[in-house]
Amino acid sequence: MGDEHIKKASIVSIGNELLNGRTIDTNATYIAGRLRTISLPVVSVHSVPDEVDAIERALTLATSEADVVVATGGLGPTDDDLTRQAFARFLGVELVLRPDLLAKIRQFFDRRGIEMPARNTIQACIPEGADAIENEMGTAPGVRAQKDGKLLLSLPGVPTEMRHMFDTLVLPELQSLARGQAIAAKRLRCFGAGESKIAEMIGDAMQRGRNPLVNCTVQTGVISLEIVATANNQAEAEKMVQEEESSLRASLGKLVYGVDDQTLAEVVGAELARVGKTLAVAESCTGGLLAKLITDIPGSSRYFACGWVTYSNEAKSRELDVPPAMIEEYGAVSEQVARAMAQGARRKAGTDYAISITGIAGPGGGTEQKPVGLVYIAVGDHDGTDASRFVFSFDRDSVRVRAAQTALNILRLKLDLTGPVPI
Amino acid sequence: MGDEHIKKASIVSIGNELLNGRTIDTNATYIAGRLRTISLPVVSVHSVPDEVDAIERALTLATSEADVVVATGGLGPTDDDLTRQAFARFLGVELVLRPDLLAKIRQFFDRRGIEMPARNTIQACIPEGADAIENEMGTAPGVRAQKDGKLLLSLPGVPTEMRHMFDTLVLPELQSLARGQAIAAKRLRCFGAGESKIAEMIGDAMQRGRNPLVNCTVQTGVISLEIVATANNQAEAEKMVQEEESSLRASLGKLVYGVDDQTLAEVVGAELARVGKTLAVAESCTGGLLAKLITDIPGSSRYFACGWVTYSNEAKSRELDVPPAMIEEYGAVSEQVARAMAQGARRKAGTDYAISITGIAGPGGGTEQKPVGLVYIAVGDHDGTDASRFVFSFDRDSVRVRAAQTALNILRLKLDLTGPVPI
Repeated sequence: MGDEHIKKASIVSIGNELLNGRTIDTNATYIAGRLRTISLPVVSVHSVPDEVDAIERALTLATSEADVVVATGGLGPTDDDLTRQAFARFLGVELVLRPDLLAKIRQFFDRRGIEMPARNTIQACIPEGADAIENEMGTAPGVRAQKDGKLLLSLPGVPTEMRHMFDTLVLPELQSLARGQAIAAKRLRCFGAGESKIAEMIGDAMQRGRNPLVNCTVQTGVISLEIVATANNQAEAEKMVQEEESSLRASLGKLVYGVDDQTLAEVVGAELARVGKTLAVAESCTGGLLAKLITDIPGSSRYFACGWVTYSNEAKSRELDVPPAMIEEYGAVSEQVARAMAQGARRKAGTDYAISITGIAGPGGGTEQKPVGLVYIAVGDHDGTDASRFVFSFDRDSVRVRAAQTALNILRLKLDLTGPVPI
Repeated sequence: MGDEHIKKASIVSIGNELLNGRTIDTNATYIAGRLRTISLPVVSVHSVPDEVDAIERALTLATSEADVVVATGGLGPTDDDLTRQAFARFLGVELVLRPDLLAKIRQFFDRRGIEMPARNTIQACIPEGADAIENEMGTAPGVRAQKDGKLLLSLPGVPTEMRHMFDTLVLPELQSLARGQAIAAKRLRCFGAGESKIAEMIGDAMQRGRNPLVNCTVQTGVISLEIVATANNQAEAEKMVQEEESSLRASLGKLVYGVDDQTLAEVVGAELARVGKTLAVAESCTGGLLAKLITDIPGSSRYFACGWVTYSNEAKSRELDVPPAMIEEYGAVSEQVARAMAQGARRKAGTDYAISITGIAGPGGGTEQKPVGLVYIAVGDHDGTDASRFVFSFDRDSVRVRAAQTALNILRLKLDLTGPVPI
């Protein structure tokens, strides 16, 4: 498949905040990732301020590089939002007020019982001859236009609005545009070993120029191995990915917990729901993070019963029946207290499983015997309660995230061992 | 000082990995942040793949937009590193092998007791007439060149190498280049009103071409107003920012909760610590998120005592003494239950304040009377317990984040009213 036949995309990110060193452009990353799934590669990202000239220059370069240009940002109602104007100028047309769009924006405010501020009227204006793209999550419609055979899209910068609009209304059109070019990709998500260890286990899979190629990224202890295969047709590309996946799974065993964007909480939750078991959590240093990760998953109320954030020693004793004498003797950060917290939570909530976490997230509070990063995690079920000791590295956030993720992983492995074998 | 006299910078980020949706370009954010400190504004970031044509196009656009172009990436020793070649072509010269640079690269390997791989020789090649920039953290020297009065810099993409080279060898030169221009900036963080409402309250502050200019961004309900002032000297710029801040604060009153990167949880926590009061939380739909936001702050154990994630009705009754008959009569998502949860949490934890949240985060569980997004928040203190009703929009994540942030904001306003006036 020759490079010249492949349709390509370019992204234009618009907003002063992207150029001041404070805001990271997650929209471009999101769009590039989604376009990857439909075999439409991104050849450039241009980030420019909220200025008509700069936006127009970026659109000119982007259309010279790609068949599709996806712009985000600058569609808000305030004076610094100038993307509509820049699109109109680039297309050589005027902005026109569309009464149907205005009615929808009014409706949006009506539902909240608020009168529409006058300045939101500008959001009902789009370049003459362009199409509006409906925004189900906010007031700014997107814009779809064509120039010299190139497709131009302008989406809101607010990530929730952009993502919803992109996934539901933009991606299907781009998918048919990219038909006939085949890139298949899949991510294996691993937890429980470091990057170098995993690299060692999978041999030459990451070697440059290989097809399929495996690319490794690390985030919050999760190692993602992305398999990318290029072929003349989708079936062939998919098959190559599948074979690579089998081979990686054979090498990595239980280190692989899921695929694509699956989280540990999602996988553990699905398994709890499948086997009809329930869970309670008792947290100290993670301060609600573990419960949050679990309840991030829609439908988690089927298996998640109750959580305690027992930050103080008093709360540990009062709420979870941890004996004050035990805290006195071993300290709140101890195997004994972790075990007692899990037991207390499981008993009080009446659940099948309970997880507890107690540790020192830092930055203060560490000693030579009990350094910052020391965490005890206990998991209890009808057979008893196991506690493990960990020392996690770096800052407060990392320690908390690692502790919560590790706790979920312990439960995952436990479920895998005690439950029936998944088909 | 007219805009046309201000020196500006553009960033060119080079590397395939930046365009596949998996890698976020932290180098551009770092450089933009550093350049802000020396009052050299960044007017664009262009991210392109490891291809000579694409790099050359980006350099052409960047030099048309700015006085200084900082490129990163593509200086490695492998075949896909083509930035040197692209720079040479853009400058209209050949690459030349510099024996002094080669000697340094050899030394780098010698120090590690490794023989230099032959392919590292390419890293000793730079465009004819250009200067090398020493790399103290790796093998690839940077490149410094000039064309038509514009300064072009090429730095390695490895963040540790890039940052060290940029800070020690690049920034000083750019600082003298930007001498005589001064930019000062400050962000005001607001919560409690929408973007349009805030825009209305502050008049023309966001109007293009104004100095200081105010730029508005929205994230998780927080509106950030960044004030940027440009002047001939730093003291003058700072003074302009200060005056603008006073004027915005006068217009916005209590909507302004903090500055720069402050979160609501941080501001509320600092105030609780200052007045020596304690807090407990009882969460249903936010599932631990509120506790997590509060305990994200180091030292939160001074004021945060305990949290309950009472996801099931049983847990609400058992843990927080919410009467089952009340849940039966009004439903778990009701003003009555919110109030009872806050009262139960405050009584059991023995704290000065308690916050409760109960609602329907979705995606399922909504009815016509009680739609997805319906949330009751109650805040209790020694005077009693106030409950409020909200309908938040969109998806599960947004509803949860808005609910938790709104709860913190209610407590912030309460603290402000009951506590002594801050100096």
